Amino acid sequence: MDRKPLTVDSVLEVRSGAATVPHAVVRMRGRHAAALEDHLTVEEPLEIRLAGRSLSVTMRTPGHDEELVAGFLFAERLIEGVDDLDVIAPYRGPSEDPGLANVINVILKRACPAVRGRLGRSVVTSSACGLCGRATVEGLLADVPPITSDLTVPVDLFYGLEPALTAAQRTFEKTGGLHGAGLFDAEGRLLSLREDVGRHNAVDKIVGHSLLSRTLPLDRRILMVSGRAGFEIVQKALMAGIPIVASVSAPSSLAVQLAQACDMTLVGFLRQGGLNIYSGAHRVTTGADGEPAWR
Amino acid sequence: MDRKPLTVDSVLEVRSGAATVPHAVVRMRGRHAAALEDHLTVEEPLEIRLAGRSLSVTMRTPGHDEELVAGFLFAERLIEGVDDLDVIAPYRGPSEDPGLANVINVILKRACPAVRGRLGRSVVTSSACGLCGRATVEGLLADVPPITSDLTVPVDLFYGLEPALTAAQRTFEKTGGLHGAGLFDAEGRLLSLREDVGRHNAVDKIVGHSLLSRTLPLDRRILMVSGRAGFEIVQKALMAGIPIVASVSAPSSLAVQLAQACDMTLVGFLRQGGLNIYSGAHRVTTGADGEPAWR
Repeated sequence: MDRKPLTVDSVLEVRSGAATVPHAVVRMRGRHAAALEDHLTVEEPLEIRLAGRSLSVTMRTPGHDEELVAGFLFAERLIEGVDDLDVIAPYRGPSEDPGLANVINVILKRACPAVRGRLGRSVVTSSACGLCGRATVEGLLADVPPITSDLTVPVDLFYGLEPALTAAQRTFEKTGGLHGAGLFDAEGRLLSLREDVGRHNAVDKIVGHSLLSRTLPLDRRILMVSGRAGFEIVQKALMAGIPIVASVSAPSSLAVQLAQACDMTLVGFLRQGGLNIYSGAHRVTTGADGEPAWR
Repeated sequence: MDRKPLTVDSVLEVRSGAATVPHAVVRMRGRHAAALEDHLTVEEPLEIRLAGRSLSVTMRTPGHDEELVAGFLFAERLIEGVDDLDVIAPYRGPSEDPGLANVINVILKRACPAVRGRLGRSVVTSSACGLCGRATVEGLLADVPPITSDLTVPVDLFYGLEPALTAAQRTFEKTGGLHGAGLFDAEGRLLSLREDVGRHNAVDKIVGHSLLSRTLPLDRRILMVSGRAGFEIVQKALMAGIPIVASVSAPSSLAVQLAQACDMTLVGFLRQGGLNIYSGAHRVTTGADGEPAWR
């Protein structure tokens, strides 16, 4: 396949300088101690206020906060699209408190019934119902359509995703403490990369970016996450219509259950020229003839 | 040092058989596909009800659910100790729904003011205030005393913790998808090990086990977690009075900020005979004379 070069610089927007901070540490090797300057991943609370009322506080790495909030609201089904948003901006209160940079205020154009019903609960939780995984999956799919994208992707293309994500993360990574999420097109080109101390936040930022730039649904895209894939990752991908999700490490049982139920392709342990397909193997092909890797 | 052998079998209680489930996957190596049976880490929602009222839904790996709930309530400061608990047990409703195994009902002996005030908010959030990290740390320390334990630990002892945690996890680990948390005594012996898809859940289970067995505070203990150490891990350790927290990978900025503010020893990148000390280096010694590794 004719693979075009990655244009990492162009897809990585200028990130807040505060994603890492220097910190003096004592490094021990055996019994030998040395002082050195290390870099820490910044973790800070972000409060989301809806029309001035506190909706949620989440720990996140600063940067792309508006995307994070947009993606969060979308995944929680408090908005259906960018047209439901009127204002999404850092809170400007009467004080000069610099901490207010950690508060994002949202004003909706219309309060849809879902929002009114859920705000009665004061703080948003996930879509889990508290009964069991099966009921959680069924409850979600009662409202959200399954994946119908006919996208297929050669297995060789998958093997290029992990090095691309790792290389793009390395450009900025000093701390070893950030999760990465990358959105790729069907030719394996990295379209956007977001990082955060929380893997779900990185995915919210990816989806929020697409929502704010009006490129939803992402039915011709591949989402790749560093580390593991849990229920939340698959849920957020489903909301955005992403047909293929890949992770470097293991998926959870509920992630696989949801992927199977909505016909999403879920790939795990994608590394070093190998991968496992947990769901939707019909979207992975082995050759130019589009032959599925497995029937 | 005379190191006694680890007694992993004795400290690992019988775990629910449902921590992993088999799943048929398609494994690809290059373009070659093969079907095989893999094991998935179980992720299921757990709902905590307080006197029948829904308090929180969290995704977790089943097993030690009562410990998880006790540890969660303690970390959220909804209880001050085991004597505040009257009932903590799986919900038994009128139906036979097997999903109710994922509901734990809690009845408190007394509703302390903190509980009454916080339940008005309907769903518990973390102790983050939504302004900034500094304010979050100061708000927490206004109510929680700092670490005053005079425990010191030779650096050589640290180097044994990671292999011990890994070996104990390997006994049960089939999936590569579980976070581990281990509680060690001052001689480096593993006292308890808990695993979960969520690192914070594994720590809640450790603390909950100690709370239910009346061994709090843990002021002569070391907590070790696989992976990274974020704010929540340090917060939960602080609530339990644990003076030393170690992690295999990087801590976040807010984890370090909190550890410094409460004089907790925070060690990161503990692997292969090396470690970084981010806070509280005075508790790490280099020799038998108790000389601190760094002043």
